[in-house]
Amino acid sequence: QGWELTHDATRLERTFKFGNFVEANRFVDRVGELAEEEGHHPDITFGWGYATVVIWTHKIGGLHENDFIFAAKTNRLAE
Amino acid sequence: QGWELTHDATRLERTFKFGNFVEANRFVDRVGELAEEEGHHPDITFGWGYATVVIWTHKIGGLHENDFIFAAKTNRLAE
Repeated sequence: QGWELTHDATRLERTFKFGNFVEANRFVDRVGELAEEEGHHPDITFGWGYATVVIWTHKIGGLHENDFIFAAKTNRLAE
Repeated sequence: QGWELTHDATRLERTFKFGNFVEANRFVDRVGELAEEEGHHPDITFGWGYATVVIWTHKIGGLHENDFIFAAKTNRLAE
């Protein structure tokens, strides 16, 4: 499963699967570090075995080129 | 705001507010560590300035004494 457009195509969302809570948490840590580096802050939901990342540009209430770049960088963190 | 019962009183939910993304992320890190220590895994959503923790016992599809204990310990991590 790749990224999906949600909320009338104003957000990018992808759920990543993991074998347990710790692995999901580690991935979320990396996404959090990326968010700080990029100054771009997604909403992240995680728990046992999964993490869902929602990306959008709050200022414009929708998607900007930077959101797609952030999505591509997030993918790399899951590899 | 304290904990609320949601999903027909099968879950405990509380949203904690923070001044930025990093502070929310740090709180989430601490909740993740607590989850591993306790062997009890909440669902956590966070982003810029907030973190929402949802606690329930997946095995019984509802709330057990341990969930209330976990909620109390989560409160301490936010202090």
